[in-house]
Parts: sequence; structure tokens; C-alpha cells
Amino acid sequence: MSDPRPVIGFLTDFGLDGAAATCRAVMLSICRDAQIIDIAHTTRKYAIRDGTFLLRGALPYAPVGVHCGVVDPGVGTARRPIGIRTGRGDVLIGPDNGLLPPVADALGGSIEARELVNRDLWLPNPSHTFHGRDIFSPVTAHLAAGDAAFDDVGPAIPLGELVRFPPPRVIASGGRLETEVVYVDSFGNLRLAGGAAELADAFGAVSESSPVSVTIDGGHARAATIAPSFGHVEEGALLVYLDSSGNVALALNQRNLASASGADTGSGVTISLA
Amino acid sequence: MSDPRPVIGFLTDFGLDGAAATCRAVMLSICRDAQIIDIAHTTRKYAIRDGTFLLRGALPYAPVGVHCGVVDPGVGTARRPIGIRTGRGDVLIGPDNGLLPPVADALGGSIEARELVNRDLWLPNPSHTFHGRDIFSPVTAHLAAGDAAFDDVGPAIPLGELVRFPPPRVIASGGRLETEVVYVDSFGNLRLAGGAAELADAFGAVSESSPVSVTIDGGHARAATIAPSFGHVEEGALLVYLDSSGNVALALNQRNLASASGADTGSGVTISLA
Amino acid sequence: MSDPRPVIGFLTDFGLDGAAATCRAVMLSICRDAQIIDIAHTTRKYAIRDGTFLLRGALPYAPVGVHCGVVDPGVGTARRPIGIRTGRGDVLIGPDNGLLPPVADALGGSIEARELVNRDLWLPNPSHTFHGRDIFSPVTAHLAAGDAAFDDVGPAIPLGELVRFPPPRVIASGGRLETEVVYVDSFGNLRLAGGAAELADAFGAVSESSPVSVTIDGGHARAATIAPSFGHVEEGALLVYLDSSGNVALALNQRNLASASGADTGSGVTISLA
Repeated sequence: MSDPRPVIGFLTDFGLDGAAATCRAVMLSICRDAQIIDIAHTTRKYAIRDGTFLLRGALPYAPVGVHCGVVDPGVGTARRPIGIRTGRGDVLIGPDNGLLPPVADALGGSIEARELVNRDLWLPNPSHTFHGRDIFSPVTAHLAAGDAAFDDVGPAIPLGELVRFPPPRVIASGGRLETEVVYVDSFGNLRLAGGAAELADAFGAVSESSPVSVTIDGGHARAATIAPSFGHVEEGALLVYLDSSGNVALALNQRNLASASGADTGSGVTISLA
Repeated sequence: MSDPRPVIGFLTDFGLDGAAATCRAVMLSICRDAQIIDIAHTTRKYAIRDGTFLLRGALPYAPVGVHCGVVDPGVGTARRPIGIRTGRGDVLIGPDNGLLPPVADALGGSIEARELVNRDLWLPNPSHTFHGRDIFSPVTAHLAAGDAAFDDVGPAIPLGELVRFPPPRVIASGGRLETEVVYVDSFGNLRLAGGAAELADAFGAVSESSPVSVTIDGGHARAATIAPSFGHVEEGALLVYLDSSGNVALALNQRNLASASGADTGSGVTISLA
Repeated sequence: MSDPRPVIGFLTDFGLDGAAATCRAVMLSICRDAQIIDIAHTTRKYAIRDGTFLLRGALPYAPVGVHCGVVDPGVGTARRPIGIRTGRGDVLIGPDNGLLPPVADALGGSIEARELVNRDLWLPNPSHTFHGRDIFSPVTAHLAAGDAAFDDVGPAIPLGELVRFPPPRVIASGGRLETEVVYVDSFGNLRLAGGAAELADAFGAVSESSPVSVTIDGGHARAATIAPSFGHVEEGALLVYLDSSGNVALALNQRNLASASGADTGSGVTISLA
């Protein structure tokens, strides 16, 4: 039996009009047998933390591979192109702007980081505006193909020097959880900072249908139910649940809560006993 | 020559922000050589019949495979996860909510249905809200990889017990076809219930440019032409045609009829002699 | 080592709701080992020149292959289905409506064109409205699989007979560049006709931050800077740059210029010394 095909997870904010496809073309020119898993390319433009959320949700379920993430408002400036080797054995490739370190945390942690300076692994004559095509994709593909080792991409960077965002705010106390929206998904559900531990700290052992009160961005109090899944409440009812990433989350069953409430990433949410 | 790569057709209403990618990651972790054909992930949220329409249009053209469809407003409730074996040899995996049986009808019919209860084929610790990732994708991939046989997924369900929607309404009489919109495609064309037989029942042998009158949702009568394709009428003119799925359909040539008319799935359409 | 998998680049304006997937299903039924690179399927409906722009941007980075482009407002009429063999060794398959010749120009030029009339390479009983599925996809896949040679698809067409659009207008003179928008990308950046040569003809050797004045569609003059990349100007500032395709382009750093200015494909743009 032959070796399995190399896996490349790939996320950008390039949209659907050809730029991500051009990167796939570059990758496949270098690593003809790659199995590319497109994670998302409609990531909100320049929304680095959205990219992180999506990569963290998907990559732990993917085979170990060389994965490439490009949400890069600073393309063409001094921000460093980097690679991070993870505890699980993946390599993550992208800009040093905070996108990748939390993803590495979800893949066994960051073991080693390097700056991508070896131009032998880039396309010739790289542009100033499309490092996804000219730097990140070819480096990713050379590593996936086994043409180059991680040591070859460039010099090591101390892990403590990597750019990281501050963690989101979560305060769990008796009967109250103060948190914030960390991602709005395509259903309009609000994914919040904090998980099962914070929910238990706030509310103890909750039954399968505990009534609570929710305020979003300091607005009016809304009646909600803590429940395991959407179908446990009426259509259109507000639900607090643990989402499939382990985050506390808010949804209107079969409705779009983000549209209905105006909430967005960073919105403050307070959940308290009704 | 080696065996061909297993084919997995895959449709969801998960959108483009990572959930379908996470499922692809699960599938490829279990079946590394799978050739996944993404049918659609921007299916209208919770629109089970839209999912059926899209699967029916695409899968008859795909190689025999193990296909997975997830439009699942009842996730986490008592609705059963099922598999259906088709006359053509495919297996269809998804929720028992009406999505899959008409798809099996288009693939040689339903031969055998089973409930997915064998947890050895699921991911460990399945969530309440993401059965696409935790149940449907791994079962699909184990079957595609040949790690498990269809008998292994769980006990048989009588075919008559599967959830089915009532068929759409179509009445063809001399000079008149009463039908309804079953799908609005991305061009804004209205795909209608009924096909060539119903068109012939209503209008006999129609010439290549027969004038008719069309009303949508009881609105004003619009002049239209029965013609084989868009280019047979002026830009912006209303056209009745047999679409590529064999359905009667309505379009404004190079315009968006759904936007122009406000019609949607379920809208009533009457076509009569002008 | 086995032969590399055949590569098929694929672009349509079919949207994301199943039609392009049906074509992929057809291709994989005929060429089971194909590596399909989806270039774009959200190309603006009927926008032939947008399709050309996207194919020209992506395919030069792809392995030599058989590539299929379908933006085809004339489907079902007398417009010819064609194939073009390129200097680089690719074959391009699609309608003869201007979409493909400039793409061939970017792949070593057009060497030979043929009309797709050999019905043995089509699906049986082709529809009038979905030649992407019934003609273009199967011909593409038979060529990719090596089941058929280019000579087999149909008779040669003189290259001078292929439909071509007139080139966009570009006038570069001392201190002034008159051009037009040839593509609006997903970031809202305006890609313009003309490249480095025209920029040099107009402005000589420009420094890394040369001030210029820009008018769009005859509107008010806007202050802008010629710079290598987005990060060289303030957030929200107007930038003239050479894009990654080699085109002169206009952007508002981290903003959507198309939305802010109302510009669209075909809009006139004048750049002059400030």
C-alpha cells in the first residue's frame, strides 16, 4: 500500500473569486497528490480572530498535516511570515499576526516556530500583495510533499515572541456568567467565550431545561433556557447551550439570533438566573 | 491498477464557515483516499426539500458511492439517524426527516434502511448539536473505506416507516397547468413540479415558441413563451422550459425571476394558453 | 511511481447550489482520479469577461491540464462549443463567446481550436439548458482521462474565427493614465487595464510613495498614493498599486472601494500627477 496522500488544511479571507483557487493551483503544482481541505475562504475580511476560531474548530478533526491560514491585513509590511510545529506533528503556515498560536494550542501546543525566509521555497519574484500565493502556499506544499524539512524554512523564533491576542473576558460567579461573543456562525448563533467549566461555576449542575435571563450588549432581559440542543425548545425560543466546540453559545431555535439582536463579535453577554 | 478512490457526495445547510470542512476532515481522517464531491453547503437553512432537490439533481451523475446529506433542524432530538441502500448500490446517510427517500428514488429506489445506532462507527462523545461531524460523517467514511458493512450500522427499519413529505401539487388539464415552485435556483429561475408528461397533458405537442400566459401566486397574467432554451427569447422575456432535471421551469432570460416576482418555494404557478 | 493525477481547472457562473457539483460528478464518473481545481463558481452571472479575468489569474499557476470554463448566456443557441489547445499544453473547453482566447494567451497562446461536435464524448440526450453538464464536463473528462485525443473532439476551427472581445481602453501619457475597471475583486479593490509598462509610461520611475490624483467615472478628484502594498498607507487611504496579476489597481486599505465609490467593471479611471 502506498503512503497516504498529504493533507493540507487551508483557510483564507480571500472570498470565492479565484485567489484561493490560485493558491490551490500553486500547492498542487508542487505537491500533485495533496488532499486539500478548504476550511473557509469566506472568513470575514481581515478578521484574524474569526480565522482562528474556524481553524481551531476544524483542524483537530483533520489528519496531521501541513496547514495554511491566511488572514493578513498586513501583507507586504514587516509582519513576519511564520511556521509553527505542533505537539501533534502538524505544521501551521501563515502570518505572525495572532492567527496561528491558539490553533497550535488546540493541536498539542506550539513546539517550535520559524520565520519563512528561505526563498528557495517561495515562488520566484514574489508580489507585495499576494503572499498567500507567492510565499505561504509554496512553502506549505514543499513541506507537505516532503521536498523540504521544517528546519529548512528559516531560522527559529522564540515562541514567546509570536504575536498573540489577549484572551476574551469571562467572569463566572454564583448565578451569573459575564462573557462576550467570540464568533457569529452562519446560522446566526452566538458562540461565547467560556465552556462547560464556566457554565458550572455560574449555575452549578443545571437541569436539562433551566430557565435563565440573557442580556446582550446591555439591552433588555430576554427569557432563555439552558438545554442540550435546539430541538429541546420551541421554534424561535432563546437557548443557551454548549456548542460542538465546547463553547457556551446562544441561539434562537431555527432563527438567526445575530440578525434579530444586532450582536456581533465582541458584544457583551450576561446570563443570569431568571 | 489500484481500486478507484471511494466517492462521497456531501450536502449540508451548514454554510461556508467551517462546519462542513470539519466534517470533511473527519471523513478524510477515516477514509484517507476519499474523493468528496461537495454538492452544496449553502442550502437554505433548515430547507429539507431544497436539500432533496439538489441531491436528486447531482447524485444520479456521480459514481456509486456513500453519500451524506445533513439538513437537520431536529438535531439532538428523537429523530432517527438513518442509512438507505439504493437500487444502484449507493448508501445514503443522514437524518430521517424526509430528506433522503426521494433521493433514493432517483438512484434505483430504496432497497433497505437501517438506523445508525452502532456507536463504534461514531466519533467518541458525540455532541448534541453537531451530528454531521460526530455521527453522519464517521459512519459515511467507515462505509466508504470498507471498514464496515451496511449491516453493521444498526438494525433494519421497515421502508414504509421512513419519513416522507407529501408530493407537490400538479394538475394538468386541456390548456392549463397548475403547479407550484419546488426550487428557486441561483439564477432566480423557478423550478416547478411536473415535467414533460404534464406539459404534454396540458398543451399537447407544443411548438418551439408557443405563447402562453403565466400567473404566479394569483398575481397578474404575464405573457410567456414555451421554448427549448433561454436564447430562444429576448433578454428579459419570460420563458417556460423543461429544465435540465426534467422539471417544467420558468425564467426571465438573463434576469432573476425570483427577485422580480417575489416567488419562492411553494408559490402557486398557473400556465394557460394565451 | 504512478502517473500524476490529471488536473482539471473548472470555472462557472452556476453559483453554489448544485449545478457545478453535478458537473464535478460527471467529470469524476469519467475520470475517477481527476484532481479538480474549482477556480470560481460565484462568477457574476453572465459576466464572460469576469470569468476570463479569473481563469487568467489562476490557470498559469496550475499544472498543465484540461480546463473547463462555462459562462454561457447563449446556451442552447447556435454559439459553438469549442476546445483550444495552448502553447503550454493545456486544453481549454467551453463556449465560443470570448471567454477562452485571452486565457489561452496567458498559457502560451492558442495553437489549435476545434468545435466539440463528437457526440460520443457527450452525455447521451443532452439538454438545451445545461451544456456544462452534458457537453463541456464529459468532453473535459474524456480528454483528462486520456480516453480521447484532442483531434477526436471535432473539426478544426481557424483561430481567427474565435469570438474575441475588443481589448479594454488604456492611454498612458506624461503624467496621466486613462484606463478602466476590468474586475472588482472580493475585497472591493478595482483591477484596471494596463500594467507596469503603462504605469511607467505615465509616471516614469515612481518612488515608493508618490502622490497622485484619481478620478473614477468623472467624479471628484481623490488624493492617492502609488505604493507597493496596502500596509504602506493608512487604513482607509486610497492606494494605486500593481496587483498580483500585474494589473494597475486601486484600493482603500482595509476598506471596500467598490462599495465606497460605486465603481464597477467598465468604470473609467484617470490617474494623474497630484
